Amino acid sequence: MPLAMNREVFITCAVTGSGSTQERSPHVPRSPRQIAESAIEAAKAGAAIVHCHVRDPQTGAPARDVALYREVTERIREAEVDVVLNLTAGMGGDLVTGPPEAPLPLGAGTDMVSAAERVEHIRQCLPEICTLDCGTMNFAEADYVMVNTPGMLRAMGRMMTELGVKPEIEAFDTGHLWYAKELVREGILEAPALVQLCMGIPWGAPDDLNTFMAMVNNVPEGWTFSAFSLGRNQMPYVAAAVLAGGNVRVGLEDNLYLEKGVLATNAQLVERAVTIIENMGARVIGPEEVRARLGLVKRAPLPA
Amino acid sequence: MPLAMNREVFITCAVTGSGSTQERSPHVPRSPRQIAESAIEAAKAGAAIVHCHVRDPQTGAPARDVALYREVTERIREAEVDVVLNLTAGMGGDLVTGPPEAPLPLGAGTDMVSAAERVEHIRQCLPEICTLDCGTMNFAEADYVMVNTPGMLRAMGRMMTELGVKPEIEAFDTGHLWYAKELVREGILEAPALVQLCMGIPWGAPDDLNTFMAMVNNVPEGWTFSAFSLGRNQMPYVAAAVLAGGNVRVGLEDNLYLEKGVLATNAQLVERAVTIIENMGARVIGPEEVRARLGLVKRAPLPA
Amino acid sequence: MPLAMNREVFITCAVTGSGSTQERSPHVPRSPRQIAESAIEAAKAGAAIVHCHVRDPQTGAPARDVALYREVTERIREAEVDVVLNLTAGMGGDLVTGPPEAPLPLGAGTDMVSAAERVEHIRQCLPEICTLDCGTMNFAEADYVMVNTPGMLRAMGRMMTELGVKPEIEAFDTGHLWYAKELVREGILEAPALVQLCMGIPWGAPDDLNTFMAMVNNVPEGWTFSAFSLGRNQMPYVAAAVLAGGNVRVGLEDNLYLEKGVLATNAQLVERAVTIIENMGARVIGPEEVRARLGLVKRAPLPA
Amino acid sequence: MPLAMNREVFITCAVTGSGSTQERSPHVPRSPRQIAESAIEAAKAGAAIVHCHVRDPQTGAPARDVALYREVTERIREAEVDVVLNLTAGMGGDLVTGPPEAPLPLGAGTDMVSAAERVEHIRQCLPEICTLDCGTMNFAEADYVMVNTPGMLRAMGRMMTELGVKPEIEAFDTGHLWYAKELVREGILEAPALVQLCMGIPWGAPDDLNTFMAMVNNVPEGWTFSAFSLGRNQMPYVAAAVLAGGNVRVGLEDNLYLEKGVLATNAQLVERAVTIIENMGARVIGPEEVRARLGLVKRAPLPA
Ligand SMILES: [Zn+2]
Ligand SMILES: [Zn+2]
Ligand SMILES: [Zn+2]
Ligand SMILES: [Zn+2]
Repeated sequence: MPLAMNREVFITCAVTGSGSTQERSPHVPRSPRQIAESAIEAAKAGAAIVHCHVRDPQTGAPARDVALYREVTERIREAEVDVVLNLTAGMGGDLVTGPPEAPLPLGAGTDMVSAAERVEHIRQCLPEICTLDCGTMNFAEADYVMVNTPGMLRAMGRMMTELGVKPEIEAFDTGHLWYAKELVREGILEAPALVQLCMGIPWGAPDDLNTFMAMVNNVPEGWTFSAFSLGRNQMPYVAAAVLAGGNVRVGLEDNLYLEKGVLATNAQLVERAVTIIENMGARVIGPEEVRARLGLVKRAPLPA
Repeated sequence: MPLAMNREVFITCAVTGSGSTQERSPHVPRSPRQIAESAIEAAKAGAAIVHCHVRDPQTGAPARDVALYREVTERIREAEVDVVLNLTAGMGGDLVTGPPEAPLPLGAGTDMVSAAERVEHIRQCLPEICTLDCGTMNFAEADYVMVNTPGMLRAMGRMMTELGVKPEIEAFDTGHLWYAKELVREGILEAPALVQLCMGIPWGAPDDLNTFMAMVNNVPEGWTFSAFSLGRNQMPYVAAAVLAGGNVRVGLEDNLYLEKGVLATNAQLVERAVTIIENMGARVIGPEEVRARLGLVKRAPLPA
Repeated sequence: MPLAMNREVFITCAVTGSGSTQERSPHVPRSPRQIAESAIEAAKAGAAIVHCHVRDPQTGAPARDVALYREVTERIREAEVDVVLNLTAGMGGDLVTGPPEAPLPLGAGTDMVSAAERVEHIRQCLPEICTLDCGTMNFAEADYVMVNTPGMLRAMGRMMTELGVKPEIEAFDTGHLWYAKELVREGILEAPALVQLCMGIPWGAPDDLNTFMAMVNNVPEGWTFSAFSLGRNQMPYVAAAVLAGGNVRVGLEDNLYLEKGVLATNAQLVERAVTIIENMGARVIGPEEVRARLGLVKRAPLPA
Repeated sequence: MPLAMNREVFITCAVTGSGSTQERSPHVPRSPRQIAESAIEAAKAGAAIVHCHVRDPQTGAPARDVALYREVTERIREAEVDVVLNLTAGMGGDLVTGPPEAPLPLGAGTDMVSAAERVEHIRQCLPEICTLDCGTMNFAEADYVMVNTPGMLRAMGRMMTELGVKPEIEAFDTGHLWYAKELVREGILEAPALVQLCMGIPWGAPDDLNTFMAMVNNVPEGWTFSAFSLGRNQMPYVAAAVLAGGNVRVGLEDNLYLEKGVLATNAQLVERAVTIIENMGARVIGPEEVRARLGLVKRAPLPA
């Protein structure tokens, strides 16, 4: 089999995320206006999709107010540049235990809400895509767990399917991809699905190529996938994703630096991804081609 | 590189587990006496290590009373057959959410206790080996999460190291193995470590060979590993583990059947594993060779 | 993806080969009568297919006289046990260079004949299967090359297809499998094809699992494959082939020993393979099921 | 294991090769002067190593006259830019059979000479590196075989080691890499060795990532490797090689185009590789760092 690289690649820009990065770079957008502006610049630089979280405009702390999502959505929809909108649905599954001496009661920072509440902004904003974090796992924090139980995922997945919003399944490890296939098998998600292979995020799948290829080999034929890694592995993974037949995600959610000591903007990260992709001989495709490929429909948000 | 199979293989028998299997087979041992007897039969059949949970003697429900562990330990230690004792330390990390409509408050079945309480039976019984489930994940239950946060794992790992009990790191997915390496890097666990690759358990790593080899390729040189899968994949995984250079785990914790419709005993499952291993041209090693290889010391439990 | 092992496995017994093994074991059959008898015993032990070379009845040296093939064919066809016949078409591509000081002229042992001559016994004997060594490579001899050029393979492949004899493509390295796909792409061989992954033969593909899985991952969907390795890796590869979704080859062509110091018969090697396969939970299938699966027709040889 | 990419990468430019490409691009250098000039431009563009064949200055046909190699060597050695010289030792192992109807006698184009003759230009020119094609295989020509028998490789390898010229082992398939390890095991080549993984050349190893990673996983720890593929996969393989921990080869020997329809110069191909490498966050190293890493010594050619 010759190299099955992807020669028509879309770039997702993950604009801001929910990490506590807002103090570490002035380029991490906080307010809906800033987020939308950074997303629009990323689109102009070549991103076909912008993946957005919202933050408290003052503190930059992660937020999940529907009004913030609405403002981001409207600003991006009204921009002169077309782009596919991807909103996170990852908020509201945060569990913080007590310390090892007393894991219960749950600690401050716990934010575990209902499926309906977790997708309410999706219902109102109707982005083309929203994320579905397809499992439960540790991150690099002592007492934190990202909780997405099978029951919660079925409920959220069913809501997304009913809303006609394409879930981008976030697979942080091989088991998450396995469960994604189960959700499709059960008819909760539609095939062919869209999956994001989230590599190198402690303590999910490491981003070595053997693990990455094991995941890629398990993506069902016909599905579309993208992949990314963090920090200084963000740009190498642009190449890795394309080589493996996938699409690309870059942006400040995953990496703050253009190079050592040089803080990046979202647009700069997208530009660099474009450079890598094009020099490898592939073409960067735009939002209309993405919609055609994934069967997405651009819709107006619900009236407020 | 020629085939790097393991030609000197140890078998662990996982005697009873904590699954709700006690009604599905009369061979699943419940009382400490039954568990010890089944373990001893497994040892006679060729298991060098017996991995034990305890259960409520009446109902068969999973338990974690130290007295039950003590009785199992003493019965096995007093048996005429030598065997390496491996006690689970997996209990006490059970979290059950409410339904997707209301994930909080936590539901019945939640059992989240302190690190000290989770290893108290290890401190008292001083088995050669105890398990350390190296991450947090979903299983095939709608609202259940196995919770082992990084902070909890550091605390439990430190206690095991101080007790001189070798942790068998249970890696249910690639990220768990990555975190195991982190625990060694931090000096909490000692190198070379012992790891169990737990394959095919929903919703951890699937047991296809690509994923398995990705995990095997990430086991550090010098570490000892074992691997298993569930149900009808238990016996195939005897072969897979040996081929990949590892050791073997079988037993009723993971599989109830000898073949379709034929319920197995632990001893029968071990015998079948021995048959596969020996016909592949490898040798099954006993408890003394395992202790020598892993640097284990057989000790008496603390006085009651 | 769960383990995609093969649960309905056929065994090929490679009865005698062309190696200079005849002095190393009394069980290596030499005369057509001995070869047929050993093949029949292998069939009785569970081999669905027997893969046969012929040898000089006196010296045991490899031969390619059509009369010898005819006698083997007739004896096997007339046996009371049914078995699928697979004749080698590997002879007649032997090139021996002079020493490094003077590689030309070609040396003694060179036997390079036309495509027609290489398949003449296939034309006359009409076995269900014949082999097609799908490339050119070194073996563990200083000056020897097995030569099967692309042009020769096209010519031989076309003849086999016209004869209605199913080629078993021998892939000794990843490039041979690639060329097999090219032969199918060109319409010279029919899809789905049958391929034998010949692992661990110096200096073809090593038999480590990473290389093996790379080859398995490149077998097109729908094709049937088998795999084997040599010597003491023969029995481990019974397990490896089944685990990877393939079928099994054992026999004296590839391995003379049952265990260290104990010479084997073909039937004993087949029995051992059956033991491994059945203990792994798979079923060994017979010649009629193989014919149905591969679309083979049992035919009489041409009249003499 | 985090991504083990190479962050300090050297580029080899394969300047002209022996392919019949000279009519397909005006940029394929023919005369020693042209070859040296193209090599020097490649060095200025960022290649630390130039890999050179020689050609008939008039026809562009592949040649192996020592005088031509000497002229190339001297011109490159005298250039104002420093570069590591790598001369092919691949010539003189060409075997062309007759057609499938009569493979013998050997056909026109056969050029099989002694080990001494194959390395005579190496002995005289004393480049830092020379290639050793580590096996025998078919290429995409009906009747052609590249012949490098085990005996020939031992003889040539021994000569290179005695000359103090570092062999770059060309592995065109997994078995070639296996034999390279055998040559080191036998003490004929020195460890750590230098290996070039030649991917995607019909009919050697295909360049899909599974096969590539199987080869990379089999490169012994401590060895240095590089990798390349052909044609439009040349630039993707720049990324693949770096991601897998290796170094890079580009140049007109393997690819004539900058993009579809646009013929490239060697310098342009090197520039593009530099762009990819640097945008991935790695650094391109120069000839002095390569010599330090590989233990190479720059020497004058023998006096004429
Ligand atoms: Zn996000
Ligand atoms: Zn257990
Ligand atoms: Zn054969
Ligand atoms: Zn070359």
